[in-house]
Amino acid sequence: MEPILLYDTTLRDGTQGENISFSAEEKLKIALRLDDIGIHYIEGGWPGSNPRDMQFFELARRSSFKHARLAAFGCTRKPGRRPEEDPQLNTLIASGASVAAIFGKSWDLHVTQVLETRLEENLAMIRDSVSFLRRNHREVIYDAEHFFDGFRHNREYALATVAAAAEAGADVIVLCDTNGGSLPFDIPPVFADVRSRLGRVRLGIHTHNDCGLAVANSLTAVTAGAVMVQGTVNGYGERCGNADLTAIVPILSLKMGRPCMSAANIKKLKSLSRLVGETANVVPLHGRPFVGRSAFAHKGGVHVSAIMKTPEAYEHMDPGLVGNQRRVLVSDLSGKSNVEYKARELGLDLEAGGIDSRRIVAEVKQLEQSGYQFDVADGSFKVLIEKLTDTFRPLFELESFRVTIEKDKDQPCQSHATVKVRVGGKAEITAAEGYGPVSALDNALRKALGRFFPDLDTMRLTDFKVRVIDGNRGTAARVRVLIDSRDQDHIWSTIGVSEDIIEASWQALADSFQYKLAREKALRSNRQEPLPLKMA
Amino acid sequence: MEPILLYDTTLRDGTQGENISFSAEEKLKIALRLDDIGIHYIEGGWPGSNPRDMQFFELARRSSFKHARLAAFGCTRKPGRRPEEDPQLNTLIASGASVAAIFGKSWDLHVTQVLETRLEENLAMIRDSVSFLRRNHREVIYDAEHFFDGFRHNREYALATVAAAAEAGADVIVLCDTNGGSLPFDIPPVFADVRSRLGRVRLGIHTHNDCGLAVANSLTAVTAGAVMVQGTVNGYGERCGNADLTAIVPILSLKMGRPCMSAANIKKLKSLSRLVGETANVVPLHGRPFVGRSAFAHKGGVHVSAIMKTPEAYEHMDPGLVGNQRRVLVSDLSGKSNVEYKARELGLDLEAGGIDSRRIVAEVKQLEQSGYQFDVADGSFKVLIEKLTDTFRPLFELESFRVTIEKDKDQPCQSHATVKVRVGGKAEITAAEGYGPVSALDNALRKALGRFFPDLDTMRLTDFKVRVIDGNRGTAARVRVLIDSRDQDHIWSTIGVSEDIIEASWQALADSFQYKLAREKALRSNRQEPLPLKMA
Repeated sequence: MEPILLYDTTLRDGTQGENISFSAEEKLKIALRLDDIGIHYIEGGWPGSNPRDMQFFELARRSSFKHARLAAFGCTRKPGRRPEEDPQLNTLIASGASVAAIFGKSWDLHVTQVLETRLEENLAMIRDSVSFLRRNHREVIYDAEHFFDGFRHNREYALATVAAAAEAGADVIVLCDTNGGSLPFDIPPVFADVRSRLGRVRLGIHTHNDCGLAVANSLTAVTAGAVMVQGTVNGYGERCGNADLTAIVPILSLKMGRPCMSAANIKKLKSLSRLVGETANVVPLHGRPFVGRSAFAHKGGVHVSAIMKTPEAYEHMDPGLVGNQRRVLVSDLSGKSNVEYKARELGLDLEAGGIDSRRIVAEVKQLEQSGYQFDVADGSFKVLIEKLTDTFRPLFELESFRVTIEKDKDQPCQSHATVKVRVGGKAEITAAEGYGPVSALDNALRKALGRFFPDLDTMRLTDFKVRVIDGNRGTAARVRVLIDSRDQDHIWSTIGVSEDIIEASWQALADSFQYKLAREKALRSNRQEPLPLKMA
Repeated sequence: MEPILLYDTTLRDGTQGENISFSAEEKLKIALRLDDIGIHYIEGGWPGSNPRDMQFFELARRSSFKHARLAAFGCTRKPGRRPEEDPQLNTLIASGASVAAIFGKSWDLHVTQVLETRLEENLAMIRDSVSFLRRNHREVIYDAEHFFDGFRHNREYALATVAAAAEAGADVIVLCDTNGGSLPFDIPPVFADVRSRLGRVRLGIHTHNDCGLAVANSLTAVTAGAVMVQGTVNGYGERCGNADLTAIVPILSLKMGRPCMSAANIKKLKSLSRLVGETANVVPLHGRPFVGRSAFAHKGGVHVSAIMKTPEAYEHMDPGLVGNQRRVLVSDLSGKSNVEYKARELGLDLEAGGIDSRRIVAEVKQLEQSGYQFDVADGSFKVLIEKLTDTFRPLFELESFRVTIEKDKDQPCQSHATVKVRVGGKAEITAAEGYGPVSALDNALRKALGRFFPDLDTMRLTDFKVRVIDGNRGTAARVRVLIDSRDQDHIWSTIGVSEDIIEASWQALADSFQYKLAREKALRSNRQEPLPLKMA
C-alpha cells in the first residue's frame, strides 16, 4: 500500500495556538528534530506575513536537512493582480524553500463575502498561482481551505476549485476542514467525489480538533484515499488545535499497517513531543495519547498485579514502541536500570561501589514526584548522586544570604543581595545588585567565590527557565527552575524545586557552581593523576 | 430515531484519572448538577470498594433528583461464591441506588490469567450476578469489560459472555473498550455481530481515549446501534481519559440529529465543565472542544475581519449553543480589526470615542515585541486600553513595597513583604509573609486593600505562569509572568514583563487587583444605574 506522507505544520499553523510562539532559532531547532525523526514535509512559516518567518527560512538555508523538504506557506494571488507582481507569492520563491504550500478558497461564501470577488476570478487566482509556482520549479501543495464546508454549500463550485489547482499542476491537493466542524462520517463521500472528478492526483487531509475528532477525521481520510496527512506535534493549533501527529503516526504505522515512519524513529516520538512542548513552554498534557506522562500509567490495585502477569491485559500496546514507559503510580520499581545507566554515564559505577542502588532509586523517585526532573538536569543529578553516596565534597558552603527588593511608586524595582560563603576555613561576605533578585544573588555569589576561584571567570549562565508545577495554587505554587551553564568546552544543567522561587533558583545556582568547581578541581588534578570521574 | 441515553461516570471512572478526586460532598454537588442538566444516569461510585463511595450514596438518598437515575458500580460475584453471599454485590443493593452497573469479563485471557478461573465459571458468574440484581428490583447495566479485545481474541467466547448477561435479564449491555486501543473502523462489525447474536436488547458504548479516538468511537457506536453512551465530564479518567461528554452531547444533538439533551440544557455545558474542573482543582484545558476558553478564539487578522462580516465563515457553530462565547485574541499576528473588536467586547467603542485606534495598535504591537502577550491577558488588555485612552481610574495606588528574602545555611528561605498603598485620600501600610517573595507580596497587598474592599475575599489567584523570554541572557533574562484569577463567576488573566521577576509579577498582580476592583465597582453601580462597560 502507498506510504503516507507526513506534513508537519507545527511551525506555522501550530503557532496560531494561544500561547504558542517560537523565535526563528527555536523554529530551526524544532525543524532539525522533525527532519531527524523522518517527517517528510516541514512547513516553516508564512514568509509573506511576518519578518520572523522569513528569518527562519534564511537560517534554514544555511542548515542541512537529511530527508525532509521545507515548505513555505502562502495563499493565492490577490484578485486582479498578475502572480509575477504579487509580493506575497514572490516571497515563497524568495524563501528558497523547495515546496510552496498555498491555500485557496473552496467555499463560495468566502469568495463573495470575505475576498469580495467573483467566483470565476477565484478559479483564475488558483490556476495562476499554482502555475506560477510550478514555472518557478516549486513542488506545489494546494490547500483547499474550508473544503468540506464549501462542498456542503456548493458542491459543484468546491470541485471546480480543486480541479483548477489540479489542472494547473498542483502536486498534492489537500482537503482542509478549516473550521473543524466535520464528522468522520462526512469524509469518505467527499473524497470519493473529489477522486472521481480529479482522477489520479494525490490527495491530502488537514483537520482541526473543534469536535475532538481531528485524529479520527485524518485516519478516515487515509482509508478514503488520502496519501498526505497534515498535522502538528502535540496537536498545537488555533482554537482546539490541529490533528496531533504524535497520535496519528503510531496509529497509522502500528495499528493500520500504513507505514509512514520507521520503527526506530517512532521511538523518538515522546521526546519530540517533549522538545516542542518545552520550547513553547507549555505545560505538558499528561493524558496526551501515546506520548503523555500518564498515557501508560496505572493507578494500582487490580490492574497492577495483572500487568505484572500479562501487560497486554491492560495496555493497548507496548509503551516502548513510542519511546514512552509504563508508570505504576503506587510503588514504582521500574526506574532502577535508568538510574544505574545514568550514574554510569557520569562515571559512577554504583554496583561496583557496593552501593544500594535501590535506595538511590527510591530517593530519586521521591524527588521526581515532588517536581524534580533529573533527565534534563545532569549537573544536579551528579551532585545528588554524590550526596546520596556520601562522596559529595562541597567546594563552598553557604552561611547566609539576604535579598532585598524595593519599589517606589512606578519606579522600577531595585534588587540587591548580600551573600556570605565559607571556602575551606575562610569566610567571605559581599553584596551585589542585579536585574531582579536571582540576578543579584548570582552576581553576589560569583563575586564572593571569585576571590578563591579565579577560574569562575569562564563560567556563564546561558539559559534560565522557570516552570510553575502546580499553578492552580496561585502564588503559593511550586516552581521548578532550570539553569543551563557553560564554560569554554562544556554545558551542564541544574535544577531546583520549591514553593519559593528564590529557594528554587538558589538550589539550581548552587548546584551549577558546585558542579563547575568540582570539574575544575578534577581537571587540575588530572594534570598529575588519572581523572576520577568521567564527566558527561 | 431513538433518543440516546447519557450515562455519566465522572464520579467513578473519572476519579481513576491522575490528580482527580472528590469528597462525598463534592460528588453530591456534581451529581445534582448532572441531574439538572439532564444526564439520564449518574454513576456515583463503587460502594463495595471504598467507604467514601458508600457515604456518597447515603448523602444522595437524602437528596432529590429531578430526572436522573443513580447507578452504583460493582462487578460480578467472586468465583465459587453464591451472589447472595457476595459482600460486594450486596453493597450495590445496600447503596439504595435504583440502578446497578456491574462489569464482567469478556476476554478469555482475563478469565484465565487475571481471575484465574474457568471460562464456564465466568459465564455463570455473569448470569448469577445479573439475575440476583434483577431479583432485587434493580435496573441492571452490564459493562462488558475489554469487549473489543476479547472479541478480537476469541469472538465466540466474547459473544457468549454478553449472551449470558442478556439472558439473565440485563437492561443494557455496554461494550467497553477498556484499554482504549480500538479504532472507529473496528466498532461497526462488532456491534453488528452482537446485535445478530442478542436480538433486541439495548446496547451501549464505553470508550477510553488512549488513541485520541474516544469521542469518534462513541459516535461511531451510535451509528452502529448503541443507544447509551458512557463518558465523563471533560473526559477525565485513567491514562488518557474517558469519552468526553462535553463533546459528545453537542455533536449528537446539534450535528447528528440524535437528541440526548434539551437545547436549554446544552447551553449549560460550559458551566458544567467549569464546575467539575474547579471542583477537581485541575487547570482547565483551554483548547477543550466546545467548552474550552479557546474553543472559539480567533487569532489571525484575516480571520477576524471575516468574522465581523459572517461568523459562519470561520466558526463551525454558534458558540452560544453550548454556553461558550467567541473570543478575539490580540497578538502580533493581529491587525486593527482585532484590537477594535476586542475593545468593543470590553465595552469601549474606539471609533465613537474619536480615538485613533491605529495608535493603540502600534502601542500594543510594540509591547508585544517586548514580550507582552495580550491574547492571553484580557484583564491587562483592558487596563492598557483604558490607560491609552485616558479612561483608567486606578482604585488604588502603590506608594512603595519592600520584599526581603533571607536564607541561613540549609534552612529554607523566608520571605516577607511590606506594602504601602493609597486608596482615595487614605494610606495603608502593612506586611505579610508568604511562600516566596511573590506570595508575600500578594498576601500583603490583599491585606492592605482588604480594609477598603471587603469584596476582595471572593478573589483567588488560580494559576501563575512564568516564562523566560530570552533565556540565553542567564539570570538577567526578561521574564513574562501570567496570572489567572477568578471570583465566583468570572475568570481573567493579567500579564507583566520585566528583566526583574518581581517587577513582572507585580505588574500582573496589580492589574489583576485593579481589574477585579473595577469590575466590583461597575457591578455595584449597576444596581443603581446602567453598567458603563460590558465586561467580557
